[in-house]
Amino acid sequence: MPKDKVQKPRRPRAETPKGFRDYFGAEVLAREAMLDRITEVYRLHGFDPLESSAVETVEALGKFLPDVDRPNEGVFAWQDEDETWLALRYDLTAPLARVYAQHRLNLPTPYRRYAVGPVWRNEKPGPGRFRQFYQCDADTVGSASPAADAEMAAMTADVLEAVGIPRGDYIVRINSRRVLNGVMEAAGIYSEADPDAHAHVRGIVLRAVDKLDRLGREGVRALLGEGRRDESGDFTRGAELPEEAAEIVLAFTDARREDTAATLARLRELVGPSATGRAGIDELEAIAGLLDAQGYGTERIVLDPSVVRGLGYYTGAVCEAELTFEILDEKGRPRQFGSVAGGGRYDDLVRRFTGETVPATGVSIGVDRLLAALAAKGRSATALAGPVIVTVMDRHRLPDYQAMATELRRAGIRAELFLGGGNMARQLKYADRRAAPVAVIEGGNERERGVVQLKDLALGARLAADIDTHDEWKSQPAQVEVPRARLVEEVRAMLARGGR
Amino acid sequence: MPKDKVQKPRRPRAETPKGFRDYFGAEVLAREAMLDRITEVYRLHGFDPLESSAVETVEALGKFLPDVDRPNEGVFAWQDEDETWLALRYDLTAPLARVYAQHRLNLPTPYRRYAVGPVWRNEKPGPGRFRQFYQCDADTVGSASPAADAEMAAMTADVLEAVGIPRGDYIVRINSRRVLNGVMEAAGIYSEADPDAHAHVRGIVLRAVDKLDRLGREGVRALLGEGRRDESGDFTRGAELPEEAAEIVLAFTDARREDTAATLARLRELVGPSATGRAGIDELEAIAGLLDAQGYGTERIVLDPSVVRGLGYYTGAVCEAELTFEILDEKGRPRQFGSVAGGGRYDDLVRRFTGETVPATGVSIGVDRLLAALAAKGRSATALAGPVIVTVMDRHRLPDYQAMATELRRAGIRAELFLGGGNMARQLKYADRRAAPVAVIEGGNERERGVVQLKDLALGARLAADIDTHDEWKSQPAQVEVPRARLVEEVRAMLARGGR
Repeated sequence: MPKDKVQKPRRPRAETPKGFRDYFGAEVLAREAMLDRITEVYRLHGFDPLESSAVETVEALGKFLPDVDRPNEGVFAWQDEDETWLALRYDLTAPLARVYAQHRLNLPTPYRRYAVGPVWRNEKPGPGRFRQFYQCDADTVGSASPAADAEMAAMTADVLEAVGIPRGDYIVRINSRRVLNGVMEAAGIYSEADPDAHAHVRGIVLRAVDKLDRLGREGVRALLGEGRRDESGDFTRGAELPEEAAEIVLAFTDARREDTAATLARLRELVGPSATGRAGIDELEAIAGLLDAQGYGTERIVLDPSVVRGLGYYTGAVCEAELTFEILDEKGRPRQFGSVAGGGRYDDLVRRFTGETVPATGVSIGVDRLLAALAAKGRSATALAGPVIVTVMDRHRLPDYQAMATELRRAGIRAELFLGGGNMARQLKYADRRAAPVAVIEGGNERERGVVQLKDLALGARLAADIDTHDEWKSQPAQVEVPRARLVEEVRAMLARGGR
Repeated sequence: MPKDKVQKPRRPRAETPKGFRDYFGAEVLAREAMLDRITEVYRLHGFDPLESSAVETVEALGKFLPDVDRPNEGVFAWQDEDETWLALRYDLTAPLARVYAQHRLNLPTPYRRYAVGPVWRNEKPGPGRFRQFYQCDADTVGSASPAADAEMAAMTADVLEAVGIPRGDYIVRINSRRVLNGVMEAAGIYSEADPDAHAHVRGIVLRAVDKLDRLGREGVRALLGEGRRDESGDFTRGAELPEEAAEIVLAFTDARREDTAATLARLRELVGPSATGRAGIDELEAIAGLLDAQGYGTERIVLDPSVVRGLGYYTGAVCEAELTFEILDEKGRPRQFGSVAGGGRYDDLVRRFTGETVPATGVSIGVDRLLAALAAKGRSATALAGPVIVTVMDRHRLPDYQAMATELRRAGIRAELFLGGGNMARQLKYADRRAAPVAVIEGGNERERGVVQLKDLALGARLAADIDTHDEWKSQPAQVEVPRARLVEEVRAMLARGGR
């Protein structure tokens, strides 16, 4: 390159990486408030907090995401200087299995923990699909009891109501991977004697069934057979099941009947003599019985064999919570909001580390999806009241203005000194932008007389931009002159009169 | 490799990656409580929350860490599928500059935000040094006023007192990078006319001065000259300053005098005719005046030229908070606890993106260090009271036991059904391990008579392991029989009587 073409280093782009985003003010507070409500339910149920690191070794996380075609199978990974592969956690369950295996001698059994935090998926970014999102999980490690599974489904329903989803606007569906294995045994692709055989085909079947919502019955049928070409022309290879076997799997997804007993009976037909399938059905029956005894009717929690969950680590009961109301999508078309939580039993995840089976079950709330749902229903609005703004008329008197802000704060009133540049109009515009309830103004005249002006911005919520002279603001009805010595009391009174 | 040597895939290791750790129960709650207290101070001062993503592009983060010799200069980085280099944020300031540049048209000016979250540094792990830790920052973007810098120092002092560090146990030191530049101008390695010249040498000087605490005056002198060989034999190349220039820099770090006026006078001597240096001193004087007017005496916030901060992006005032009490290190030797917070003015960080200078200043609280400090002083202890444990005498009556736990929870009492295996002794041992205040016991006999046993575990805080038969627990004084219908009231009464 000729030397005169050498450019100055170009500026970095001020952009979040693709698929990431920022959360401002009220969005952050709304999430905090939601997490408080969710964790309160978990705590009430006896779960203790755990925070593991965001970074795990790739080998500890394992490969359980359905994103088999993505770079690093869907995780963000890099090599540490000692050559160990590290990755950002893709969920809170795989790290829990690592934590339990590592610290099991110092933990109670069962170990009941909740966890809150971001997880990262190396997915293809798209509208409304982010590569960092919050989960809030509860898990019971060390219990094989169906009561542990029932508790997860029940807590999911309780959590949804606690965050403001009314009964009737959600449904928790439960099912069992063991029953699915029983069905696959009937279809000839699972054998308890050699559980590793056909594992690859079963993975394809699982991911196909998990897409039932999106692809419909015929799309799933194609993926169970030769494969499916999507609208973009991409071809996904199928499980290549014989037609009869595919029919058994499809019948399983269709097995929901008018009540729990009828669904269980239909499942028994489908799994036939499979011991795995029968054991799974017995578990589902026990779970359904426990939920019924606690008064969770089928309008809240229902047995539904079409739910399988995409993650590879589940071994028993699975559950998924869906919001049933319609929202409008980006193109203004009504659609069901869809899944906001899910979980299940993963009895083999700790065994990966220790060689000993440790039964475990849990649920994960998709916090950001749930926030989006509440926003779509116009039910989020957690606003942080703006601060009282102490304006600056005379730059040489900063210490005096600062003293006012300090006095207000010592009285517990959110207050700040205006630190920008510009005239009073600009300061009042700033106060408006901050949704400030009150502005405090003190010029030389006020100073001499020992008073300050308090501008009630909540009351006078009109544009302040065209008010340019001192005399003009005095004529505003929403402004009062008070003794400087009574600053705190008068501001407090103005806030109490309504304010923002 | 001969085929019979092929091994089964080895188990993954159940270990956090090197330099990472897990936080359990009370540790998580203690951090939450501390973050609540810190953010309350920030909110009171008018700062709004912001949560940016943990992942940024490497170019957006820039290279400002002092770890020039570490892989990727101290960050965890990897390449995205579109070849963009991504990294975990190493602090919350660089991402703020990106956020402000990206969203500035929709943000108020000044933009005052606080942020909470983990940051990651690709440092060499060592005892007590972790590669993921929490920061809690407040920043004002868009204000050049010394009042903004003064506010950061004042808030730092307020935050430390709010989290439980008494006055006298901390000191906030302030200084100015502009004054340091003035000193370097006097030493011949800075010129306002060509600020990029000697940048590399100034970086070495900066990092050397930042190590004053650790290396002492002679260590810094070596790094200002030829270089320094450490105890391990590693040689760090120095700035190769002429002796006279090194003396000026060392005199700067020594410039603190008995009071602020004397320190300022000494600094004026050192910077001589440097306009940059004089402007920096004027700013320090203004900041010190504003702090004095607010009543922050020099026992809380002091002007101290030995503080420079290691990060490369500071351009003006800097501050650092240190805890002044002694703790015992891992080897039992007394040492000062050291720095727990710091910050400063970084007027050029937004300009990297936009080309326009945007003045900005902020402070970052090292949350995990501060938690460690409180723990070292025996002042952390945020305990989550254990749950009431409903034990399981008869596995066939799970729904009845579950109903008890549900009743307790509906009354707001933290309660869980025992979901593990084992006899009553094991269940009581579990209850003990969970620090449960009460265990609820109902056998067939109780069931017939419509009563339950409540075991006051807080009262009888002795080992439950040797209690094996039903009759034995009946004889315990810390156990009462109550009507099943009065379960909630009686548990509540027992909890009120003391409990854990």
